[in-house]
Amino acid sequence: MDVDRHGFEVLDREECLRLLARGGVGRIGLTARALRVILPVNYALLGEDMVVRTSRGTNLAAATARTVVAFEIDEVDPSDLRGWSVLVTGVAQEVSDPDQRRRCDALGLPAWAGAENTCYVRISTEIVTGQRILARAVSKLPGP
Amino acid sequence: MDVDRHGFEVLDREECLRLLARGGVGRIGLTARALRVILPVNYALLGEDMVVRTSRGTNLAAATARTVVAFEIDEVDPSDLRGWSVLVTGVAQEVSDPDQRRRCDALGLPAWAGAENTCYVRISTEIVTGQRILARAVSKLPGP
Repeated sequence: MDVDRHGFEVLDREECLRLLARGGVGRIGLTARALRVILPVNYALLGEDMVVRTSRGTNLAAATARTVVAFEIDEVDPSDLRGWSVLVTGVAQEVSDPDQRRRCDALGLPAWAGAENTCYVRISTEIVTGQRILARAVSKLPGP
Repeated sequence: MDVDRHGFEVLDREECLRLLARGGVGRIGLTARALRVILPVNYALLGEDMVVRTSRGTNLAAATARTVVAFEIDEVDPSDLRGWSVLVTGVAQEVSDPDQRRRCDALGLPAWAGAENTCYVRISTEIVTGQRILARAVSKLPGP
């Protein structure tokens, strides 16, 4: 087990891809109107790339012109801060090839925003890092 | 109820701050070594600012030199995509004033990474946007 200098267990690429393969909801980081944005998105893995379903006219669709985006998934228990996170940094790009689009359709991703004009954004997993967070809670979270 | 052009209910600042006030785990978006990074962090609200506890030497601490960061919280059910998200865009800055540090200590935020050298990062909530996500699921998520 590799542990980084902050006491986090370092996850290897294989483990990160295994966690990404579960699909579901993650968060994408991009720039929209010159401001940083983080958006929740649902996604699935296609090979070693990630696919997000969106629609034209959204901030997400605007980020598909071969720009580099960040994509993060995590599972952290707020009560003791145990959990893990995986971060992907890769090039986002709209899927335009009809064969590729059919493969994306087959993933069965639900439509979210603007179901009427679907486009798929594919994000390469060039850089994948992950960490398992060991509990370090030394005082309790503020009450509800 | 305001609904944007993608069918999302738009949350006003008051509702966003109410959701932020629950504290817990959110995600911060920043740039580290020229790459976009999204990190899970635990946080609490101090007045209308957010406070994140970290330690010197982390990516997060490096983002405290009055840079603009994004901060996001959400609660989305992956089975039907119902939920909400809140996005803060604001200036991050280390808390150095001793009085302010004491107010941060009083928040009771657990230490996470590198507990040995705590610093607090305060993020202003200059720009706060939020949306409630109405279910748009039209096909099922891929199986486990």
